[in-house]
Amino acid sequence: MTSSTRTETDTMGPVDVPTSRYWGAQTQRSLTNFDICRSTDRMPTPVIHAFGVLKEATAFVNSSFGLDPSLAEAIQAAAREVSSGKLDDHFPLVVWQTGSGTQSNMNVNEVVSNRAIEMLGGELGSKSPVHPNDHVNKSQSSNDTFPTAMHIALAREVTSHLIPSLTALANEFDAKAREFDTIIKIGRTHCMDATPLTVGQEFSGYVRQLRQAVTRIETTLPDVYELAIGGTAVGTGLNAPVGFAEQVADKVALLTGLPFTSAQNKFEALASHDAVVATSGALNGAATGVMKIANDIRMLGSGPRCGLGELKLPPNEPGSSIMPGKVNPTQCEAVTMACAQVVGNHVAVTVGGMNGHFELNVFKPLMIYNALHSVRLLADSAESFRKNCVAGLQVDEGRVNELLNSSLMLVTALNSEIGYDKAAKIAKHAHEKGMTLRASAIEHGMTGERFDEVVVPANMIGPK
Amino acid sequence: MTSSTRTETDTMGPVDVPTSRYWGAQTQRSLTNFDICRSTDRMPTPVIHAFGVLKEATAFVNSSFGLDPSLAEAIQAAAREVSSGKLDDHFPLVVWQTGSGTQSNMNVNEVVSNRAIEMLGGELGSKSPVHPNDHVNKSQSSNDTFPTAMHIALAREVTSHLIPSLTALANEFDAKAREFDTIIKIGRTHCMDATPLTVGQEFSGYVRQLRQAVTRIETTLPDVYELAIGGTAVGTGLNAPVGFAEQVADKVALLTGLPFTSAQNKFEALASHDAVVATSGALNGAATGVMKIANDIRMLGSGPRCGLGELKLPPNEPGSSIMPGKVNPTQCEAVTMACAQVVGNHVAVTVGGMNGHFELNVFKPLMIYNALHSVRLLADSAESFRKNCVAGLQVDEGRVNELLNSSLMLVTALNSEIGYDKAAKIAKHAHEKGMTLRASAIEHGMTGERFDEVVVPANMIGPK
Amino acid sequence: MTSSTRTETDTMGPVDVPTSRYWGAQTQRSLTNFDICRSTDRMPTPVIHAFGVLKEATAFVNSSFGLDPSLAEAIQAAAREVSSGKLDDHFPLVVWQTGSGTQSNMNVNEVVSNRAIEMLGGELGSKSPVHPNDHVNKSQSSNDTFPTAMHIALAREVTSHLIPSLTALANEFDAKAREFDTIIKIGRTHCMDATPLTVGQEFSGYVRQLRQAVTRIETTLPDVYELAIGGTAVGTGLNAPVGFAEQVADKVALLTGLPFTSAQNKFEALASHDAVVATSGALNGAATGVMKIANDIRMLGSGPRCGLGELKLPPNEPGSSIMPGKVNPTQCEAVTMACAQVVGNHVAVTVGGMNGHFELNVFKPLMIYNALHSVRLLADSAESFRKNCVAGLQVDEGRVNELLNSSLMLVTALNSEIGYDKAAKIAKHAHEKGMTLRASAIEHGMTGERFDEVVVPANMIGPK
Amino acid sequence: MTSSTRTETDTMGPVDVPTSRYWGAQTQRSLTNFDICRSTDRMPTPVIHAFGVLKEATAFVNSSFGLDPSLAEAIQAAAREVSSGKLDDHFPLVVWQTGSGTQSNMNVNEVVSNRAIEMLGGELGSKSPVHPNDHVNKSQSSNDTFPTAMHIALAREVTSHLIPSLTALANEFDAKAREFDTIIKIGRTHCMDATPLTVGQEFSGYVRQLRQAVTRIETTLPDVYELAIGGTAVGTGLNAPVGFAEQVADKVALLTGLPFTSAQNKFEALASHDAVVATSGALNGAATGVMKIANDIRMLGSGPRCGLGELKLPPNEPGSSIMPGKVNPTQCEAVTMACAQVVGNHVAVTVGGMNGHFELNVFKPLMIYNALHSVRLLADSAESFRKNCVAGLQVDEGRVNELLNSSLMLVTALNSEIGYDKAAKIAKHAHEKGMTLRASAIEHGMTGERFDEVVVPANMIGPK
Repeated sequence: MTSSTRTETDTMGPVDVPTSRYWGAQTQRSLTNFDICRSTDRMPTPVIHAFGVLKEATAFVNSSFGLDPSLAEAIQAAAREVSSGKLDDHFPLVVWQTGSGTQSNMNVNEVVSNRAIEMLGGELGSKSPVHPNDHVNKSQSSNDTFPTAMHIALAREVTSHLIPSLTALANEFDAKAREFDTIIKIGRTHCMDATPLTVGQEFSGYVRQLRQAVTRIETTLPDVYELAIGGTAVGTGLNAPVGFAEQVADKVALLTGLPFTSAQNKFEALASHDAVVATSGALNGAATGVMKIANDIRMLGSGPRCGLGELKLPPNEPGSSIMPGKVNPTQCEAVTMACAQVVGNHVAVTVGGMNGHFELNVFKPLMIYNALHSVRLLADSAESFRKNCVAGLQVDEGRVNELLNSSLMLVTALNSEIGYDKAAKIAKHAHEKGMTLRASAIEHGMTGERFDEVVVPANMIGPK
Repeated sequence: MTSSTRTETDTMGPVDVPTSRYWGAQTQRSLTNFDICRSTDRMPTPVIHAFGVLKEATAFVNSSFGLDPSLAEAIQAAAREVSSGKLDDHFPLVVWQTGSGTQSNMNVNEVVSNRAIEMLGGELGSKSPVHPNDHVNKSQSSNDTFPTAMHIALAREVTSHLIPSLTALANEFDAKAREFDTIIKIGRTHCMDATPLTVGQEFSGYVRQLRQAVTRIETTLPDVYELAIGGTAVGTGLNAPVGFAEQVADKVALLTGLPFTSAQNKFEALASHDAVVATSGALNGAATGVMKIANDIRMLGSGPRCGLGELKLPPNEPGSSIMPGKVNPTQCEAVTMACAQVVGNHVAVTVGGMNGHFELNVFKPLMIYNALHSVRLLADSAESFRKNCVAGLQVDEGRVNELLNSSLMLVTALNSEIGYDKAAKIAKHAHEKGMTLRASAIEHGMTGERFDEVVVPANMIGPK
Repeated sequence: MTSSTRTETDTMGPVDVPTSRYWGAQTQRSLTNFDICRSTDRMPTPVIHAFGVLKEATAFVNSSFGLDPSLAEAIQAAAREVSSGKLDDHFPLVVWQTGSGTQSNMNVNEVVSNRAIEMLGGELGSKSPVHPNDHVNKSQSSNDTFPTAMHIALAREVTSHLIPSLTALANEFDAKAREFDTIIKIGRTHCMDATPLTVGQEFSGYVRQLRQAVTRIETTLPDVYELAIGGTAVGTGLNAPVGFAEQVADKVALLTGLPFTSAQNKFEALASHDAVVATSGALNGAATGVMKIANDIRMLGSGPRCGLGELKLPPNEPGSSIMPGKVNPTQCEAVTMACAQVVGNHVAVTVGGMNGHFELNVFKPLMIYNALHSVRLLADSAESFRKNCVAGLQVDEGRVNELLNSSLMLVTALNSEIGYDKAAKIAKHAHEKGMTLRASAIEHGMTGERFDEVVVPANMIGPK
Repeated sequence: MTSSTRTETDTMGPVDVPTSRYWGAQTQRSLTNFDICRSTDRMPTPVIHAFGVLKEATAFVNSSFGLDPSLAEAIQAAAREVSSGKLDDHFPLVVWQTGSGTQSNMNVNEVVSNRAIEMLGGELGSKSPVHPNDHVNKSQSSNDTFPTAMHIALAREVTSHLIPSLTALANEFDAKAREFDTIIKIGRTHCMDATPLTVGQEFSGYVRQLRQAVTRIETTLPDVYELAIGGTAVGTGLNAPVGFAEQVADKVALLTGLPFTSAQNKFEALASHDAVVATSGALNGAATGVMKIANDIRMLGSGPRCGLGELKLPPNEPGSSIMPGKVNPTQCEAVTMACAQVVGNHVAVTVGGMNGHFELNVFKPLMIYNALHSVRLLADSAESFRKNCVAGLQVDEGRVNELLNSSLMLVTALNSEIGYDKAAKIAKHAHEKGMTLRASAIEHGMTGERFDEVVVPANMIGPK
């Protein structure tokens, strides 16, 4: 079908591209030259959408610096289609391209240019009246646009998905902590029986972990709100007008509702991505916390007969067809796998962050790919865990009580009554004979009534 | 459109599934319950295809253990469609599901069952005459099928993609090493000027690194060839007939052409995945080697005027529109980013591998997802690097010579002629005055002719 | 020598300990039971000193909750000897012990008890009048003291060593940035020649990286200032009086001059160490930044003849005996190795942080060992780098100018004068012929005078 | 005390060194210039000892290439004192020095030289009659000696400590597997009750893991046996005689009893350390396996009343003074912390391995420090775990039986007797009422005798 391609050109010459796509020659060359994990590792959609926001902002600002208003209008309209996701099919490039993200910047320039040309009644591929470089990329360089898009994408994903999701999970555990606040259970240290606490107290630790995880992620955002745009090729801002950097940042802030500002030091903003490493580090920290919590839930729910059995997890899918009560902790499994991935992703981000040289870090696509992946993994898995597991958690109070009362650890309550030595004897006897503390105490001359008055777990769950 | 869904059932009751898809109730539930990175993180296709191979093999063997031959035939035919990739659209589940991979095993069972039913003229969703559990999953458990599919997928990807790709890269460097074998260049240690060597010698180090990387990966394969199938639920083989394990492994070997065997210890094969950790470790090692090589190439090609400039990399896309010679080392950038990812993936695999408990490791999907991702990343990026960069590498002999001759390090050749002290004086003088060694030597009373006779880099590239 | 040991006892019976040491039975048992990397991996000294502070604080507070004032005085005096480092030889235990750090807590209790007994004229090993558990450990548990000591140690090391060291390094680069503010050099992106900037601008990026690294580390401190003390065994505070937690935190704050407070949630403070993971994450981020900077310095100083040669690093030790100017960037090498270690340590901390269960994380010694190691590595290596390398950095202005002027990238300055197309032709011709831009421009009909008026790097280092 | 130092010199001039030490000027300078973690991070002793072996071998070989036999004899004698550990106090340098390890090579050269001078009746510091460079370092460069010492040290530590230790642990578990071979227990998948297996079967999985870990480590050794010596400065062997490389490797093999050979490619042997990355990778894999096993042991031993309680771990130290049976799994905790460290160390090794440039990787001390640390951690902790925990493991058969018989999973045995549906009803009824399967079966009309005949766990632990 000769009609299915059109000819696009760049400085190296003509290239055939599919007529159904807006992209141009440089995008097509990248497709040929970087055939790496094509089916799975596309440049993340949030980066593409962020580029849409950025190109709208730069066109808007450029119109006050001499760009023909009609072209600026068309560029803004086309860029809005990019940011809205309407043109997602026109961004076929993979993460594994040039380390500056130049090819994705050109992909955006080409798509916006052709779409704007189309809106203005021109011919696709003609670069007229809207040129991808001269107009769409005006006063910009891949070296400042790509890190700008990285920051916009990361800030938006964190604020719109991750923080709400982790907060909701914290709130859910908080509600459960209140619900279970009076249920006293055996504590476990070193995985061994220890002194009692309430289920609510135990869960309150989870709440605190999650709230701090959110706070720590938020703490990294101010650096992410700093945008590299205006630095152009090496950070000097060569070829950009004075004021461009600040005005674009303001416009991006307006378009996104997030407090973006112009980066304090553009050299740093191009040459390193410590801000992304820092956010990824906070995600790594959140993952360690979430993993701990999900592990607790799965182990406390183990059984139904041969595990700890203190919690009952909601059954979401058939366990064994014949084995009632075999509710596998599948949500815990998904979320802990996600946490392991976040930890691995953070190492990839770290390696990328430490290997930049001179005026440009060229591990940019790797870094933002992993950071965004981690954000989505934590956001989605926390939401899944919350909705499909935590919200439906129940305590098996009978089992909790049975364990609490079988514990020998309650013997510490007898110290002040009968002295340390005799209490120890009672406990030791109970342990050796496999009997209850109460029975052993009675054998040692205490009355059952007195035992029940003295050994009161509810008196053991706080300082005196 | 009420006609667009049909009702499938499992032990929890009925579920609506799209009529256009073969999957059943459990797959549909998983879609609902695990909405985590849906758009990007599908269970890797090689795992699905490996399941196709496995289900064909188990049906074949089951027919000799009492499975109705006509059902066995239909299952094998449907399974072949799975392994061929024809039914890829029917496997919508994500990596982040139950950690045993049960839901993907059921996805396969459901698709094979329905497709076999269809072939036999039955009704989709009827589970008759081919039942997903009783027939397709006969004598199996997710606990042994999923790790079996992991191993089949990993072995196939490594042998069919990675090893050929890395070997081709090694061969390409080997050819270049021979091509450049007589070009003498300055060596660099600590990034500082050192004694000379040939470009061929330098490249021979890369060849050795790559060949050893291949060998180390191959060394991990025998453990990957061991298949868990036959272990059923906890490794005992309960509900599987004696001989099933070995016969299925043989059949898988026949179908794939790879030397699969029955795992020596099925308890280990379900409860841990040290074999996958080991392969991932070999990939991590390959990544460190490839990163070193790609970094060298990019730095040796730096310039064109203000870098080292010894190598000329093929231009694959426009560099700067106005700046001739600005050929960015984009292939090096893609491959080094891929290496950073492999290192991160290995940490994820390691975390998954160390967190299994009792009779079943439940980080299986995470582990195989990362291992396969690393395989593809290395395979594809090595091939891209080879084809689009290494094959076109040229040495700028003029530049190489200029640097070699400007080096002060050649002074070591004068030691035996005029003594260490005088040689050092000549070099020091040249360094301070910014002059050549030769000019400095002449100033110190040596003739130019004698200098040229004595200072011969070609005599400095081997032991004497 | 029968006189060289004395008998100490614990609930398991008598143990011989060296008479020259204050430790008791439990310390001695740990020495026997944990013979793991004995010669290298002692419990870090800052943890021991922090325990000294803590035991002084708890004795002080206990005296207001009924502890005999004379015992409290003696305990405080002995604890001060621990915190001062005077008794370091009495803490022989390794990191690889019980994961709660119980044995190190007991080591401290035993040493303080025996030293206090000695001060009071009693007999070592008699546990009278100062008992290690009943008096020194009063109202405490290893489960709350060890994490308290972790936080005290970490906060002190960070504030007293790391932040000053990184700040001094930032200041040193800042001074250098000012010193080199007018030296214009070629920029490098993708390691390739790019548009110019000043050395001062380049270094300003380093300053920003380092200052942000400090800020990010400081941001993690408030959580580290929260102390677990008062949580006792499982976080409930059982066996501690009301008010104990807050009063001890206040006293620790007084003793250290740091704003320690009582942890908001004691369950979280024992069961997880996300705060330590967060600080370690900030160290990991600092390491990626420092590595980037040190790599730049080493590459910019490469040569002397065959590298970039823009910077001259101070020679601190003999390079090659005969090769003048071979100043190896040894400080860069030490600091980048330290950074790699910090990245590895962070993974160890992360793995420890994610593997806690129920009421107690039992990877405590591992976590604090790595966090403190990273603090010292960064602090010491940054100071060494600053003093022995950065402070003595010089720019080779001749070389910087030579590279700048040889660059073809300055052609962009001609665009507005003669048009983009003609400028490109000039650059292309210069590249192909290996001539200067100026010579090529003259060949293309421009006068040298006009070229010099138009091509002014100083006009290319900022927005217009 | 003016008598406490003597003057040593190098090409930069005189330096005072302690009279009690054999080291010279360059060692002393390094002490001053690299004050980084001085108290904890010395160059590992096995590297120093390996250098002793190497210097003995090179002196031996040099004597056949013209080195004065009396000097060669003295050097060999002094080198033997280094390798024996007698001179350990004379090696004060830290890991964080030049990345080539040059300063440690010079430390060895200086110590050997001075000690040999002393033996020959000369004056320390005179460099006569034994010169550190001209004689001790003859035909060598730090660039080939340091990686040679790395390989010698690593091979010796792995073969003499790690492999015996892991093998002994495997053997211990093997003995336990046989001891417990007839004890049938409940299996656990997803931490949930599953079908039964024997304790012996469960432990056999551990044995297999450990044996494979050993095999995988051994597989990496042939590359470690390849020695860089003979490559001199950049791998060419400049300044070394033909045959030197092979003869030194042979001599090292003779001295160590290990099959060292001359590296096939010296360029690779200096510029990269993929062999060390590979060994470290195998250690990382061993760590994931050991962690899994130690986690199982600790969880299976959890209790005594409120955990799983299937295993009884030997008490090595007092648990709670009043709480009998609180035997904390401290050995498991130490070994799992060690495993976490090994994982972190491997990341550090990987980062070092991927950041070498051109003819010399300059992360050598970092890499060998971490690799050797991991070897010792695994070796020592495995031995501690074996001796202090595994050897004393007992099964609580009563508890194991109680759990097995309370499990509902045994219901699968009823399928063939009464059909799937009725069996499921029995199980479901038991689950809901909290009764035993047997009681439920009787309620559903089965006799107790028949139940006991049919429900036989011993028939459920293998294929049929």
